[in-house]
Amino acid sequence: MDDRLERYAELVVRVGANVQAGQEVFIQTAVEQHDLARALARQAYRAGASYVHVLYRDGHARRAMIELGPDSALTYAPEWEKTLMEQWAGNALIGATTNPEPDLLADLDGERVGRAVKEELVELHLRLLDEGAMNWVGIGAPTEGWASQVLGEPDVEQLWEKVSFCMRLDEPDPAAAWEEHISRLGARARRLDELHADALRYRGPGTDLTVGLLPNVRWDSGAAETSTGIRYVANMPTEEVFTSPDARRTEGTLRSTRPLPLGGQIVRGLELTFEDGRAVRVEAETGADVVRAHFATIENADRLGEVALVTKESRVGQTGLLFYDPLYDENATCHIAYGSGFVSLADGEPHEGINRANHHVDFMVGGPELEVDAVLADGSTVPLIRDEEWQLG
Amino acid sequence: MDDRLERYAELVVRVGANVQAGQEVFIQTAVEQHDLARALARQAYRAGASYVHVLYRDGHARRAMIELGPDSALTYAPEWEKTLMEQWAGNALIGATTNPEPDLLADLDGERVGRAVKEELVELHLRLLDEGAMNWVGIGAPTEGWASQVLGEPDVEQLWEKVSFCMRLDEPDPAAAWEEHISRLGARARRLDELHADALRYRGPGTDLTVGLLPNVRWDSGAAETSTGIRYVANMPTEEVFTSPDARRTEGTLRSTRPLPLGGQIVRGLELTFEDGRAVRVEAETGADVVRAHFATIENADRLGEVALVTKESRVGQTGLLFYDPLYDENATCHIAYGSGFVSLADGEPHEGINRANHHVDFMVGGPELEVDAVLADGSTVPLIRDEEWQLG
Repeated sequence: MDDRLERYAELVVRVGANVQAGQEVFIQTAVEQHDLARALARQAYRAGASYVHVLYRDGHARRAMIELGPDSALTYAPEWEKTLMEQWAGNALIGATTNPEPDLLADLDGERVGRAVKEELVELHLRLLDEGAMNWVGIGAPTEGWASQVLGEPDVEQLWEKVSFCMRLDEPDPAAAWEEHISRLGARARRLDELHADALRYRGPGTDLTVGLLPNVRWDSGAAETSTGIRYVANMPTEEVFTSPDARRTEGTLRSTRPLPLGGQIVRGLELTFEDGRAVRVEAETGADVVRAHFATIENADRLGEVALVTKESRVGQTGLLFYDPLYDENATCHIAYGSGFVSLADGEPHEGINRANHHVDFMVGGPELEVDAVLADGSTVPLIRDEEWQLG
Repeated sequence: MDDRLERYAELVVRVGANVQAGQEVFIQTAVEQHDLARALARQAYRAGASYVHVLYRDGHARRAMIELGPDSALTYAPEWEKTLMEQWAGNALIGATTNPEPDLLADLDGERVGRAVKEELVELHLRLLDEGAMNWVGIGAPTEGWASQVLGEPDVEQLWEKVSFCMRLDEPDPAAAWEEHISRLGARARRLDELHADALRYRGPGTDLTVGLLPNVRWDSGAAETSTGIRYVANMPTEEVFTSPDARRTEGTLRSTRPLPLGGQIVRGLELTFEDGRAVRVEAETGADVVRAHFATIENADRLGEVALVTKESRVGQTGLLFYDPLYDENATCHIAYGSGFVSLADGEPHEGINRANHHVDFMVGGPELEVDAVLADGSTVPLIRDEEWQLG
């Protein structure tokens, strides 16, 4: 088991973040995930890190803040956290995305949960991403707690099997398997670029949505490069091709197809209605107030920042599991994000149409009944996704 | 049990740190002690904190650094940690002193363990203390792990009984009991001031030491006050009266009477020989290299910074237990610290004779056979401690 954790951490350090000798490495996990953080620290030093910073998040500290703290605490961005983020530049960052208790805040006021976003820090984070300032990766954190959520029992052995499959750790040469996988996704992105589509059209149960695309904004896959040329894989696993749409041209309705852990509550059955690019109506079975608070308090959170296509070839999707971890669930099926887009995908300035907002929330819209078409400039359509299968060749 | 933890946290927040409405509160524990950190966060918000920062230390990350990191990592002080410390000023700080695995680094090179001190951060910390910049408290962290260390089994119930006794949580009104206790220690400090002693003389098995005292430096107890007049109790429990000696006038030999957890190793049977104020010889059954590295790499670490008197009335001492937590063990019996002294104890500038060093390490020298005398200016002596009892009245 220790050996498995070390091999996982090594893959993450070498292929995901691609830690370079002499870099500082920032590791962020939940406090419950310290075994993973420690393995990552060891592997980062073995890869030549000059220093490893281990920082633990605590959902219960966040809970205390929202439940018992003053309003001003909800959005307060401490100076030291800004300094910390500025230190990311030129260095490597590894973050666990798994929330060990995704519904810890279920009984709290959703509006307060939604308002609790440190916009100054998000803005700084997004600027660093735009600048290609660091090599980074988001990963899942296999623990007994996560196993209980995903499998209904703390069967960490079985969870490791699933995670190893999604992470290609079951391959004889995982690094080579990742290289091949990333190339395959890259080819899809190039095919989409060649279409020069004007819009995407989504149709499915509760979904009838058109999203404009921008001519100077490319499609991308999980492979990325820093401004200094360090290649990295920002999400492990990744199964998507994605772009940032023209945030001014979203029209129609959208129904989420999987529960979405969001800030300590789980949003189920999310339904959004867009007019003139903005979400004008938010409904959900649970958690609607969190989304509404985002839209009410964060400028442009009510516009889309990302559209992403995932097919049934996804190893995450093939597990048939709900992971309650946005990283895993968004790589199981097609997803869309509200909030900030990625200006780094645009050729040339200014990036008219790409949304700017101090938040970015992915939610899942894919499933067997979802049809996604590209709408070309002449009004004709090209099928992209049918029955979760890739149609472009 | 939850209720007990909350009552403990409340006492620490209200009487120890004395958190003021509108203050930010910085909570630091080991990652294994998150239950305590969370209770402290809740109680701090209940006391009116504007924001609570929870920061977790990880001994295993430190282990990875010392075992696998480059030499430069050992003393590296990250910019964000400096910013964090600067934010302490004007705010409240609560730190757990218990190391959940005090001998985690036992198998590593003691010289590297000893060199791993972030002097820049220690220097900043000491400056903030000198300035009376924050109200703060160090406390123990009752967990199953600590129970195993102290009692030989994870009997957390029994540990809580001992901790409650030491912390006066067993009193009908713990806050009032602390007020009375602190007054009693304060009276001892005043009695020592009135002696105007020129030196202390320690005699016991392996110990024959004279330590000079300074005329303009007072004795103090655990009660303190910030520069803005916020009273606090810096150690809970506290049982000591202490002062900073004339670091230039230490002569003789000193044998430690209890094991000392130090940076991840346990120093046992420490013997120091002083000449002209400096430690010229270090011996120990285990851990000597850690102390030697402190003396070799940190300027003036080889001079004394504190002498402290504790008697058998100490509730910690009465438990008869070894806690492997410097806070508890140093409040069980007389102790001495090498490294930095406290310039805040001096009336007037400059503070000639008070040691300045970027470290401060307390070690225990007390026991039934230790005799401590005050040596007056005329050479006569006044007994202070015999058979762990207070002799001054």
